[in-house]
This record gives sequence, C-alpha cells and structure tokens, in this order.
Amino acid sequence: MSTIKPQTLKGFRDFLPDDMRIRTKVIETFKRIFEKYGYEPLETPTLEYANILMGKYGEEAEKLIYNFEDRGGRKVAMKYDLTVPTCRVMAQYGDKLPLPFKRYQIQPVWRADNTQKGRFREFYQCDADTFGTTSMIADAEFIQMGLEILNELKFTNVVARINNRKFIDGLTKYAGANNDQFYAICVAVDKFEKIGADGVVAEMEKRNLSNEIINKIMSVVSLSGTSDELVGKLKKMMAKIPEAMEGLKELEELFSFLKAGEVPEDKYQFDLSIIRGLSYYTGPVWEFAVKDGGVGSVAGCGRYDKLVGMYLGRDIPATGGSFGIERIIEIVKDRSLLTQSVSKQCLVSIFGPSEALESIRIASLLRKQNIQTVLYPDANVKLDKQLKYANKMGIELVIIIGPEEIKNKTVKLKNMKTGEQETIKITNLPNSLIH
Amino acid sequence: MSTIKPQTLKGFRDFLPDDMRIRTKVIETFKRIFEKYGYEPLETPTLEYANILMGKYGEEAEKLIYNFEDRGGRKVAMKYDLTVPTCRVMAQYGDKLPLPFKRYQIQPVWRADNTQKGRFREFYQCDADTFGTTSMIADAEFIQMGLEILNELKFTNVVARINNRKFIDGLTKYAGANNDQFYAICVAVDKFEKIGADGVVAEMEKRNLSNEIINKIMSVVSLSGTSDELVGKLKKMMAKIPEAMEGLKELEELFSFLKAGEVPEDKYQFDLSIIRGLSYYTGPVWEFAVKDGGVGSVAGCGRYDKLVGMYLGRDIPATGGSFGIERIIEIVKDRSLLTQSVSKQCLVSIFGPSEALESIRIASLLRKQNIQTVLYPDANVKLDKQLKYANKMGIELVIIIGPEEIKNKTVKLKNMKTGEQETIKITNLPNSLIH
Repeated sequence: MSTIKPQTLKGFRDFLPDDMRIRTKVIETFKRIFEKYGYEPLETPTLEYANILMGKYGEEAEKLIYNFEDRGGRKVAMKYDLTVPTCRVMAQYGDKLPLPFKRYQIQPVWRADNTQKGRFREFYQCDADTFGTTSMIADAEFIQMGLEILNELKFTNVVARINNRKFIDGLTKYAGANNDQFYAICVAVDKFEKIGADGVVAEMEKRNLSNEIINKIMSVVSLSGTSDELVGKLKKMMAKIPEAMEGLKELEELFSFLKAGEVPEDKYQFDLSIIRGLSYYTGPVWEFAVKDGGVGSVAGCGRYDKLVGMYLGRDIPATGGSFGIERIIEIVKDRSLLTQSVSKQCLVSIFGPSEALESIRIASLLRKQNIQTVLYPDANVKLDKQLKYANKMGIELVIIIGPEEIKNKTVKLKNMKTGEQETIKITNLPNSLIH
Repeated sequence: MSTIKPQTLKGFRDFLPDDMRIRTKVIETFKRIFEKYGYEPLETPTLEYANILMGKYGEEAEKLIYNFEDRGGRKVAMKYDLTVPTCRVMAQYGDKLPLPFKRYQIQPVWRADNTQKGRFREFYQCDADTFGTTSMIADAEFIQMGLEILNELKFTNVVARINNRKFIDGLTKYAGANNDQFYAICVAVDKFEKIGADGVVAEMEKRNLSNEIINKIMSVVSLSGTSDELVGKLKKMMAKIPEAMEGLKELEELFSFLKAGEVPEDKYQFDLSIIRGLSYYTGPVWEFAVKDGGVGSVAGCGRYDKLVGMYLGRDIPATGGSFGIERIIEIVKDRSLLTQSVSKQCLVSIFGPSEALESIRIASLLRKQNIQTVLYPDANVKLDKQLKYANKMGIELVIIIGPEEIKNKTVKLKNMKTGEQETIKITNLPNSLIH
C-alpha cells in the first residue's frame, strides 16, 4: 500500500477541536449581537463569475484572486471578500429584499497572497452592512454595535476612530492640492499614528508636496480636542469648502446619534488620520482600535453609496464594515479572554465486555437528560487507559460501572482533578452531574 | 457607468435570510446533539493538494472534482467530501489527537456535476465519525445519535436500515459467485426496495448470473423477520462461510448495544438490500430512511477501517457517516417541521428628524435588555412606510415615539397583527416586550 503524504497547502489550515471551540464561541458572539441589532444572516457562494469579482478592488488586489476555468470553460473566481458578492446580491434580488436591508455574513474568503505570520490564503471574514439608506443613523448603529461586540469579547480600551471621505476630499481642496496629490496626502496622513507629525511631514516632503500644502494639511491634522470640538473648529476653517462641510455635517449627525445611544464619549473619536484605502468609500469611515497591548485596528468600516450601482445601474446607498475576525480570534486565544468551557461533562467508562451493556444504558440515560456524555467506545481497553484518556481530553468526571455496581444499582463517580471517588445510586446520577 | 450582470453560477446558491434562518436551525440541532454525544468540531480547508483528494473515490467521482493549478503551479483541488480530508487530518496529527477521536464536521463541498433539481455544485455536508476503535459500540452510538437527531428535527417514521459489508462478501461466496460477479449482485440487490424480489431476479438474469446463484441469493434476501431473527437464521445458513459469520457477529453485537441504549426495536432493521456503493466500507453499513412521504435515505454511513491507512501507512479503524443535510433542510422547509421563529422582536420607528434621538435612545435601552430590536435607520421616511416595512419583515410589534410621547415619557406600542395600540411608560417597556 503506497501512502500519500498527508499535508495541507501553505496558507491553509485545519481547525482541530480546541481551536474550533474558541472560533465557534467568538463567531456565536458576533451572530448573537448582529441579530440583536436586527442584522440578518446571508451566505453567498464560494465561486462566482470572474467578471463579477474583478475590477472592484484595484489592480493590486486583483492579482490575489484565485481564478480558473471550470469544466464548462467559464472563467470563475473564489470570493475575495464579502462586500462585492453582497452588492451582487443586492442587484440580483433587489425586488425580493425589503429596503433597508441589513445583513451579516460570516464566511471564508480566499487570497492567493504571499503567506506570512498571521496571514493566510483562506480565512474567515465577518461583515455587517445596511443597504438602502443614506442616514447616519445606520452608521451610528453599526459603531454602537461594534463597540458592544468587542466589549462582549472582553476587549478593554477600545475606541472607534472615525473620519469622513467627503471631508478628506475637502481637506485636499483646502490645502490647494490637486487630485493627483490626493493619494500622496492620504498615504502620509494614514501613517500619523505610527510615525507622528514629523514623520507625516517628512513623508509628504518625500512625495514632493509643496510647503504650502504640507503646512495646510498639518494645521488640520494636528488639531486636537473632543470629537465635537474638532467638528466646531473645522467648520470654521472649512466654511468655504462644500465637500468638507458636507462631511462635517455627516459627522456631526453621527456623533449626536452615538450620544443618543448613550455610547460613552471616550469610546469614539473623530480621527483625521483614518483614511481607509479602498476606493469605494464615500462618507464616514471608521476603524475599531484596541489600544491595550498595541493590537491596533480590528475592523475596517465605512459608507459606500456607489458600489451596488456598478451592478444595478442605479445606486443603493450602503454602510457597514468588516471585522478582522481571524485576528480577533487569535487575540482571544492568546489572552484567554473567554474561559474555555469544557465541552464534555463526563466520560462513561466500560469496565469490561460483560459490563458494556450497562455502561451503554447509563450513557443513554444521561444523554436523555441532555448531559454531554462521552461513552468510551471500546469494551476491550483497560480501565486505566480509559482514565488516562479522560485526562488527555480534559474530562473531569468519570463514571465507572463494575460488577459490584451493577449488582447494587450504583455507579462510581471519580473526580479526575481531586482523585476523589464516590458511590452513587443510579437514580441520583443525573442530579449529581448537573449540580 | 457600465453595469455588470448580477448572476450566480449554475449550481451555486445565495442563501437569503429566510433560508439562512432554517439552515442555521437545522445545523444547530446537529451540532448540539453531536456534542452531547461527545463528538468534537473540526474544519478542514477548501483547497487541498489534488493528489490527496484524487484516487479515493473511484474514476466516476474523480471526474467531478474541481481542480486547477494555483499561482505557484501546484495542482490543487476543492474538497469533494469531508471523509477524505479527515483521514488526511488523522494521518497528519496522529500524535496530537487522543484516540479514540470523535469529530463532526459541517462544511461545504464542491462537485463539478451536471446540475439538476435538488443537485448543486456547492452544498453542505454534515459528517460525524469515530476513529481509533473496531468496537461495534462506536457504530451503535452513531445509529442511536442519528435517530435522536432526526427525531429532534420532527421526522417521524424513521428507520435505520443496517447491513454489513463482510456479510455481503460472505453472501457472494455462499451463492458460489466469483469476485467479478460481486458487483452485479450488489447492483441488483441494492434495488430491492424499488423493484421488489421479481425485479431483483430479472436484474440478475440480465447480468448473466446463473440460476443457481440467483436462487441462492434470493433465498437469503427474501428472508424476513426481526433483526435478531434474521441473524439467527443466517448464522445457521452461513455457518461455513467465515466472512459471513464475522459480519453476522458484528451485527449481533451492534443490535445488543442498540438494545442496551434503549433504542426501540422498530427504529432499526437488519436490511439485506443495503449495500452502500463506496468501495472503502469494511464492516456495518447503514442508512437512515424516512418512510413517510417516500423521502427515503437521508444519511449514508458505515465502517471503513482501511481508509486512514492510505495516508498513514498503518490502519486506524473508523466508523461514522454523512447526513444529507441539504436534503434534510429542504424537507424541513417544505413541511414546516420547525416553526420559524420571528427573528426580530420589535421595530423602533422614527417619527421624524426631531424625534430621532429619542428613538435611538429607546432602541439602545431595549438592546441593553437583550431584546432583538430593529431601529428603522432613517428619520426622513414617513411612519406609514415604516409600518409597511415592519409588515414585510414579519415584525409584530412597532414602537412609535412622537412629540406627545416624548413629553409624557411614554411610547406607543402597536401590534401589527391585531392593529391594537397601547400607550406604555418607557420604564415599563422592556417588561411589556419580554412578556
């Protein structure tokens, strides 16, 4: 018998049970709170027509899409994110879906990327979005929800850092820069958190922006204050720039809605350095930053009112975002933020072939009481080995049924942590396990 | 703006919220009961090295595997089922996984099949298997669990139809047939349920089996009786055929373990016509048949003690099976077996821009009480349209907060089914919604 080398492809992972339990817990937290806020579940296929997926992300990204010809000669591609397929859904079922439509989606996506630590070719994304309204209420609701989810996952010191694309457009105009220089400004300002004000200036100089432009940009991005104070200051500075004023009005509304939702003011911040790279954003953009432990951003979000139009021919406004759920799972795991509940309450061991039937009967009895029960599935393995198995599996309670016990209608209940052992009447067994 | 035609590939589906809610409910039922029986969660990647997946299923199946060259020139394939990847896992992490290892896996698989009604190119599979023991206790436990799951899903008149591959081998010998005739016998007997005894005879005649062989086969497959009676009769007939006796001994044990688990005897049946096509089965094989409505088999299962060895070089015995979860979901949907709970408890409407903040505040209040709440996300939409939206979404309770209500610290609670409307103090609102 020739064997085949058992290996996974680089960038692809198996999730064994210990991993899966934490992943499931995190994903269930997202689902529960998404649904509490009225977002509804959606799934889209792994494969799409390649032309549906290509041309939305920019050239750099498109190199990373897994695409091939299927057996019917169709050009197909594996989904690269959850936003574009959902825009396709909006265009395809527009009449079936009542607007506003709020959906969440938690599914794997694929990127033919170079692998590196923490970066995989197959990974889950976790999105929620509202389609069909331009109101800032939808943006505020998402921000409030995101903060609640991260709080549920025991992250502390989380801040929603918020900016606005219309405002950034206005800022470029205010600085006297042209459209070609917009990108250079964005790249530099985006690094503010990492390299500080001096770094941003150096970066802009390197990119040949004039001193006048640099000074004007820095006079804005160096401003400090609460979110409301910043809006106030900027409204005065930018009174003559309609794009900027539009963006500031959106932010002003957004902040008022967050206040109405009783989101504490230290949980969100107007942050002029948040840019969000993707070209499809059109209004507010935000990230959730986990400040402790230098984790940084765990979600990228924003309003994108024009993307559905690329499929539908008429615009459906949209806002929402994507949580870096793989990163979040890693942090939850590293920090043991969620205590991992033992998945199995007890092991029913089998004393020997003559006692097997009674063990099966008792396992069945416990399961009828909805008690998670591992029945050791082999009557020919020594009890000693079965106890070792319980230890390896992290099972605390082992039930032993020998000839003596069968005669007396009892079982032995062994606590693997303490080593203690007690004899219990079978009729009392479910209660002893539940309490 | 040129639009892209929004369409899914043939054989691929979007799952919109109504679909997703039923799918999720069915999948959660499987998970809950799998875990109650001590099966643990596992996931494997979408893409594997093609050579891992090919060569396991037989030529016919391998034509249906989506495979391509990735950007690094590797021959890769999308997973075709969950059994082979799990065998690869067993070989790859053998030392990390305590044996016996029990896992369940619920993930999509892909088949480049011709599409037809109810047959898709992407669909979920739902497997559970026990690795590392030859004991019939593992097989019996799976059968008991499968019956419990189908019962939870409100299927009535479900029977586990059980046979044994060793016994079928023995039967061939008993009939005096050679290995080349084995396949012809299997194909004919497999159709017993559909075409009856005469049909099976005709089928065997068509396949040029001798009258003597046909008579011997029919003398066996026409036997009737309870499972225990059949075993008794066959043990006498086959006393000289070791393979058959081995298979009958396995079945005898299996039935005794089912009895110990208090599985009612009308819930399982030794059924000589169950063959199970896949070449890797080695012991008991079984299906769960839903008899009412002519649904037929909803799961294919069996023991396969040699498959892991193809990767590992030494055998790890295994048993378990795959539930036709897509089919089960369809039946649940068609029969409304699970009453679909409304996912949203209430809609908080917005009277107008001046009342928006108060609506947001109240939505936030309700969510703090863990009440599923849809906040209508636009202050500029007329109340009328918001009420229509609630109807479309199947939301029964709408909360209305106008200027009068704000003044009196009350809300109006409108029942969309009865049309009744009552005024409630805000402080009493969460209670009115929960009760």
